[in-house]
Amino acid sequence: MTSNPILVEALRGGSVESRHRGALAVVDAAGRVHTALGDIERPVFPRSAVKLLQALPLVASGAADALGLTDAELALACASHGGEPTHARTAAGMLAKAGLDVQALECGTHWPYNETAQRALAREGSAPSALHNNCSGKHAGFACLGCAMDGGRDARAFLRGYVQPEHPVMREVTAALQAATGFDLAQTARGTDGCSIPTYAIPLRHLAHAFAKVAGGQGLSAEHARAALRLRKAIAAEPFMVAGSGRLDTRLMAHFGERLCCKVGAEGVYCAALPELGLGLAIKMDDGNTARAVEVVLAALLHTLLRAEGEDAALLRSVWDAPLRNWNGIEVGRLRIAAAPGRED
Amino acid sequence: MTSNPILVEALRGGSVESRHRGALAVVDAAGRVHTALGDIERPVFPRSAVKLLQALPLVASGAADALGLTDAELALACASHGGEPTHARTAAGMLAKAGLDVQALECGTHWPYNETAQRALAREGSAPSALHNNCSGKHAGFACLGCAMDGGRDARAFLRGYVQPEHPVMREVTAALQAATGFDLAQTARGTDGCSIPTYAIPLRHLAHAFAKVAGGQGLSAEHARAALRLRKAIAAEPFMVAGSGRLDTRLMAHFGERLCCKVGAEGVYCAALPELGLGLAIKMDDGNTARAVEVVLAALLHTLLRAEGEDAALLRSVWDAPLRNWNGIEVGRLRIAAAPGRED
Repeated sequence: MTSNPILVEALRGGSVESRHRGALAVVDAAGRVHTALGDIERPVFPRSAVKLLQALPLVASGAADALGLTDAELALACASHGGEPTHARTAAGMLAKAGLDVQALECGTHWPYNETAQRALAREGSAPSALHNNCSGKHAGFACLGCAMDGGRDARAFLRGYVQPEHPVMREVTAALQAATGFDLAQTARGTDGCSIPTYAIPLRHLAHAFAKVAGGQGLSAEHARAALRLRKAIAAEPFMVAGSGRLDTRLMAHFGERLCCKVGAEGVYCAALPELGLGLAIKMDDGNTARAVEVVLAALLHTLLRAEGEDAALLRSVWDAPLRNWNGIEVGRLRIAAAPGRED
Repeated sequence: MTSNPILVEALRGGSVESRHRGALAVVDAAGRVHTALGDIERPVFPRSAVKLLQALPLVASGAADALGLTDAELALACASHGGEPTHARTAAGMLAKAGLDVQALECGTHWPYNETAQRALAREGSAPSALHNNCSGKHAGFACLGCAMDGGRDARAFLRGYVQPEHPVMREVTAALQAATGFDLAQTARGTDGCSIPTYAIPLRHLAHAFAKVAGGQGLSAEHARAALRLRKAIAAEPFMVAGSGRLDTRLMAHFGERLCCKVGAEGVYCAALPELGLGLAIKMDDGNTARAVEVVLAALLHTLLRAEGEDAALLRSVWDAPLRNWNGIEVGRLRIAAAPGRED
C-alpha cells in the first residue's frame, strides 16, 4: 500500500510532536481531477460527510414538500449536530410532522457532543434521548421519507428496521449515493455507521466528483439536481443546524453562505461543494483525526481554491494556522500545513 | 525522515478504515535494545508518561516522609487522573499537609476528564477547580517538594512560578529526568506541557532505558532507586489514584500489581517498567492517538513480553483485539495489531 503524505504537523515549542497523513481530491463536474494528494483511488468510508447526498430522496420524493419541512429542518437532515436544545427540538418537530415521535428513531442515544448542552442536561437532572444523537436529524429525515413512501398507511410499522440496507427507505438513500458518486456500491466494502445505517467504501475521487455535481447540478438527475440546490440553500440559511456552537461547519457556512457547502464525517473525512468554482472536494486522514487534522486541511485547501483574502482569509487561516493553548491559556504550539493542498507548485 | 510502521488498524466491517503509525523500544537496564519498531532515536515529548521520574525528588528529598504522604498520595503524584471526587480530595489533602491549598497550584483548571464526574459536578451546580486538573496530584507533589526545599520559611512565596524551567523545584525535577534517561536535556527541544511545566524531547530508546532502571533500580542513584521502588509500590497499592474509573493504567495495574508499572502520556505516548523482566518500554504514536492506538500497542506488547496466559492474556487481549461498537451497541468493527510488537519473528 502506498503511503499517503503528511498533511498536518502539530508543533510543541518549535518541534513537531505529532503528524497526520492523508489524501485529498478536488474534482470538477465532468470528473476531471483538479488537484490530488495521496491515493485518491483507495475506497474510504465517507461516514457523515455524505449526509446531503443521503438526504436527496427526502426532497426529490416530494416528502419534504408534502410535510412542509422548513430550511432549518432540511439543514438538520444533513447534520451531525451537537445535541443542543434547538437541534433536539427541531428533530422532534420533524417527527411530529410525520405523525411520529422519538420512538421511531433507530440511531441510538448518546449524551450531546456539545459539552455545555451535556452539562446543562445533567444540571437539570435529565438524561439524553435519541433526539440528542448527532444523527437525529438525518434519521428524522429518513422517517419523513418513509412516511411519504408508506403513503399514509402505517408509517410506524413501515419504518421498523429502516437502518437496514435492504429496507425500502435505505435502498432509496443508497441509490442516491450511488447515482451521485457513480461508484458501484454493490461491489464495494460495506460497514455499519455509528448510527447503524450502512456506510459504503468509496474512493475520494468519486466523492469529490459527487460534490462537484452538487455544486452545479450537472451530472445529477433533474430531481436530484433540484433537491441538491434546495438542500444547499437550506444549509446556507441555517448553518447552525448542520453542526452547532463553535463547530467548523457552522462557522464556515455562516461566513461563506452559499459559496460553500461542506460537511465533516467521522474518522477524519470532509466533503465539500464549491458552487462558484464548480468543484467538489473530498479529504480523508489516514488516522481518522478530525479536529486537528482534516479540519486544518480543509481550511488550507479552501484558502487556496477560493483565493481567499481579507476576512475570508482571516477565518480560514485561524483554522489552518492555529495556536495550541494549554489549560492556562499559554500558547504551547501550533498546527502547521506540511503539504500544500491545492497548490500546484 | 523515515516513515514509522503502521502498528494499529481500525477496521469497519472487514475493511481498514483508519491506521496508526508509531515506534516502540524495549530496553534493559544496561541499555541494550531488546525490541524496536520504527525510529527509536527520534526525540519525542514524553509528556505525562514520565510522571514517576518527575516524582523521584519528592521521595528522594525526604519531603514525602517528612509530610507523611500515603501510598494514595504518592500514586496521585504520578497520576493523570480523571478528576473524580477521590482524586480531587486526595490532592487537597497533600496540599494541606504542606500547609497549602488549591491556590498554590499552577496547573490550570479544566472539567474532570471522567464524564460521570463532570456531569455530577454540573448536576450539583459546581464548577471545576485546579484540583480537578488531571495533573493536580503531580503539582501537589511539586508543592510538597517545594515546601521541604523551602525549609518551613514561606512555602507559598517560594513556590510561586514553580512551573518555570529555572525554578528550584523544576530544576530538581528536570535533573531527575535527565539522570534517569541519560539524555542531555539542556541540548534537546523543550516544550510547555498542558499543565505548564516543561517537557523535553527524548528518544524512545532513552525513555525505555529509564524505565528499565526503574524496574530494577540499577543505573539510578541509591536515593532515586529507593524512591522508584517506593513509588512503584505505592502505585501498585493504589492503582485507582494514577488514572481512575475505566482507565487502562488503573485496570492493568489493579490486575498485574507490582509486575507492571505503566503510564500513559498525552499525544499517544506510553512508558512502562516490567520488574520481573528487568525491562523498560516506551511507545509513541506518530499521530498522537491514545485511546485507540498507543493503548492497543501497549497491550499487545505486554501480552508478548509477559508471555501472558489465562486471565492475564484475556485482559490484555480485550484491549488489543477490541470490538468497536456503535451507539446501539452493535459491533461495527475491530482494532487490529498491524505490526507484531515484541515478536522477533
